Amino acid sequence: MKDLTMLTDLYQLTMMNGYLRCGREKDVAVFDLFFRKNAVITYSVAAGLEQAIDYITHIGFTPSDIEYLRSLRLFDETFLRYLEKFRFTGDVYAVPEGTLVFPEEPIITVRAPICEAQFLETALLNVVNHATLIATKASKVAYAAGEDSVMEFGLRRAQGPDAGLYGARAAIIGGCSSTSNVLAGKLFGIPVAGTHAHSWVMNFPSEYEAFRAYAEIYPDACLLLVDTYDTLKSGVPNAIRVFDELRAAGHEPKGIRLDSGDLAYLSKKARRMLDEAGYPDAIICASGDLDEKLIASLKSQGAKIDLWGVGTKLITSSDLPALGGVYKLAALYPAEGGEINKIKLSDNSDKITNPAFKEVFRIYDKESGKAEADLICLKGEEIDEREPLTIFHPKDTWKRTTFTNYTVRRLSRKVIEGGKPVAPSPSLAEVCAYAEREKQSFWDEYKRLDNPHIYKVDLSEKLYNVKNEMISEIRNKNV
Amino acid sequence: MKDLTMLTDLYQLTMMNGYLRCGREKDVAVFDLFFRKNAVITYSVAAGLEQAIDYITHIGFTPSDIEYLRSLRLFDETFLRYLEKFRFTGDVYAVPEGTLVFPEEPIITVRAPICEAQFLETALLNVVNHATLIATKASKVAYAAGEDSVMEFGLRRAQGPDAGLYGARAAIIGGCSSTSNVLAGKLFGIPVAGTHAHSWVMNFPSEYEAFRAYAEIYPDACLLLVDTYDTLKSGVPNAIRVFDELRAAGHEPKGIRLDSGDLAYLSKKARRMLDEAGYPDAIICASGDLDEKLIASLKSQGAKIDLWGVGTKLITSSDLPALGGVYKLAALYPAEGGEINKIKLSDNSDKITNPAFKEVFRIYDKESGKAEADLICLKGEEIDEREPLTIFHPKDTWKRTTFTNYTVRRLSRKVIEGGKPVAPSPSLAEVCAYAEREKQSFWDEYKRLDNPHIYKVDLSEKLYNVKNEMISEIRNKNV
Repeated sequence: MKDLTMLTDLYQLTMMNGYLRCGREKDVAVFDLFFRKNAVITYSVAAGLEQAIDYITHIGFTPSDIEYLRSLRLFDETFLRYLEKFRFTGDVYAVPEGTLVFPEEPIITVRAPICEAQFLETALLNVVNHATLIATKASKVAYAAGEDSVMEFGLRRAQGPDAGLYGARAAIIGGCSSTSNVLAGKLFGIPVAGTHAHSWVMNFPSEYEAFRAYAEIYPDACLLLVDTYDTLKSGVPNAIRVFDELRAAGHEPKGIRLDSGDLAYLSKKARRMLDEAGYPDAIICASGDLDEKLIASLKSQGAKIDLWGVGTKLITSSDLPALGGVYKLAALYPAEGGEINKIKLSDNSDKITNPAFKEVFRIYDKESGKAEADLICLKGEEIDEREPLTIFHPKDTWKRTTFTNYTVRRLSRKVIEGGKPVAPSPSLAEVCAYAEREKQSFWDEYKRLDNPHIYKVDLSEKLYNVKNEMISEIRNKNV
Repeated sequence: MKDLTMLTDLYQLTMMNGYLRCGREKDVAVFDLFFRKNAVITYSVAAGLEQAIDYITHIGFTPSDIEYLRSLRLFDETFLRYLEKFRFTGDVYAVPEGTLVFPEEPIITVRAPICEAQFLETALLNVVNHATLIATKASKVAYAAGEDSVMEFGLRRAQGPDAGLYGARAAIIGGCSSTSNVLAGKLFGIPVAGTHAHSWVMNFPSEYEAFRAYAEIYPDACLLLVDTYDTLKSGVPNAIRVFDELRAAGHEPKGIRLDSGDLAYLSKKARRMLDEAGYPDAIICASGDLDEKLIASLKSQGAKIDLWGVGTKLITSSDLPALGGVYKLAALYPAEGGEINKIKLSDNSDKITNPAFKEVFRIYDKESGKAEADLICLKGEEIDEREPLTIFHPKDTWKRTTFTNYTVRRLSRKVIEGGKPVAPSPSLAEVCAYAEREKQSFWDEYKRLDNPHIYKVDLSEKLYNVKNEMISEIRNKNV
């Protein structure tokens, strides 16, 4: 992976220089990376952790980086010498990639000397925001497609090379089964797929000749794009003519692809034509500005589509092109001792942060195995599964739920200790298997596309008290 | 720049293998890269060309790429050996970065052996789509800001590292004046800016102490974020107290930043407080979910803001996160001789492509120097500026305009010849100066945010005739 050290906002460096100048560099800070509530997304599929760990454990300024920073005339030599040896030496806790996470829940928690913890903010947000955004969008598309497969092929519309590459990986974590992206195939072992474009057909004197040439070269992978001229009058009949020749030569065709027009109508007609011609196993692949809503609508209309090719709207998460993740200070451990919890207030109560070093428990119903609620706790709190557990809504505190037959699971684990990875990252296949189990552990009510149930994310009584005491104290002091 | 060779869709490779197997590799194809009409964008600011040229002139498969492709079991050894030596050997024509372009107009035209021309599609679209999208969005933001400066600081919300890096460059071409992105500063020489975050303030016992510490370290670059606790009751008064101390020590403050709340109200109040305290030159910087519409609205309310910090909505082009550029076959020169123009039909007449090898002329009024219309012509057509020039609407052909006192300019130039760059790319400063002249050469009517005038893009009579004859011919043959 490439070096992301300089991929930072200038103010991280001005603040680091500031902490150093104030003699604060031995203070230890805790920051949480999390997402806030928003109208489009009720849950997220965490992704980007492998890239994030790689980034954190390879931070290092090169001599040319230092030279550039010197040229800005903002920093003194003490700071530049400090940067020459700058490494990350702290601890990082994170939920595994593929975990379903909810607003307010720390996806990553960093505990490190203040300059190091502060420095991570920009690149960490960049990487985790993007991957989580696309994995989340892909999970919705895959949810809409149900048992059908989804192929990601948005590279040409992705916001730059990395967006295509890491977007393809995130899409697989979210539930896609293949990509058109050859580099993603090579680097991440993702199955790659793709056949031909309209230009192939246009480059032959006729559609039939184009199909025949393609079938001769790929007799066992023959999937033909049938909408260059007229899908039902020309494309499908020409495809069937070539399929007959293929079969006569001892091969079975793969199927056809529709890329325009009324996909519900065309797929039903094409299905019947293929069936009647003796090709019930030939698949129909559909593409063309698809997203989860259009797929759900087409399926509800009885469209006969086996494979969905999804491009622009998935790879850019077009209805919400940024997840809005933030990285907020939660606690400070001054070098001279003690612990100071930190909170960011706002007139908008959804934007008030949760203070202190925390972790999240997920509560499962023992019988169904399904997730029932999450509880954000102070680090070190324990839950005894033999005792009933009562949780309450963090605003409407009269809304209470008591669990008696339950298990709990800690969502995050330590992934970096003293600057070193705790364990190798899981393979992408392992991440996908875990992500699938995660999705299965939630009732459909939380995942459905329209008006999903809002999943409970409550604060432990201890955390609730810490938070509300801090709010009162600050308001009394400042106003 | 990193190697983008493998950043391609699999079907480019399956088609190339197909052309090779059909003995077609010596046919020469012409492809156009252009944008279609869409509801959000009436003009685009072309960008990404430098990166595109770098990509095209450095294509090359490594042994490990070949090994990976062999493992797919799709390709024979003849094709893999062909890829080992694969280079781009053709010609590329492009409009300079910063050119204002309109739907249908070729931004890039590739003329090369068919496999090479086909291969470029994915990465070229990826790079040019993204950069042009962000440059265009930035031009709207800069238009709304008028004489005020705009700082780009969306890195943390960009769709991956490249989106942040190349997005920052594109934002500068579009009209931003600085970025928070340190890597973009280093690589592209863009001015970098930034001061401190809320976490800086939260890390001190009080806001005043945080401000004082910052001012001591950066006495000549002291811009303070004043909304951590309460902008008007705490932030601005504390800033003024520190500014007084700064001035007493012989320094002048830079200003303040507002990052939340009602920016119109707060900026007017803060302006008055700063003025009354003797700081009329202290600037007010505003940020917080800004885009061109919000900036225009705030300015119309008389907000007193000097510098606009724009993040998420610019770096993701949130209202249109993909420009939908396409790369379409326009002509074919078979190895055995001749020229075959190519057209892609569609039921949607906006999606019918313009056939043939083409170029675009821009027509300027000689008196005002302003652009009046563009004319897409067959390559080789000439316009004699001494003769009157009549153009007509490509659908409503009765809409005609005649120019008598005009000059014309060819929009594109050859940038790659025989696989080699024709000239070094201009510096970013040169690109920005050109982009600014481009913007100035259009009346505001075409650039305004609401209901802009639609700029005329017509076809020359020759191209119009070629196109319509092809449409008639194909419809007679196929239906």
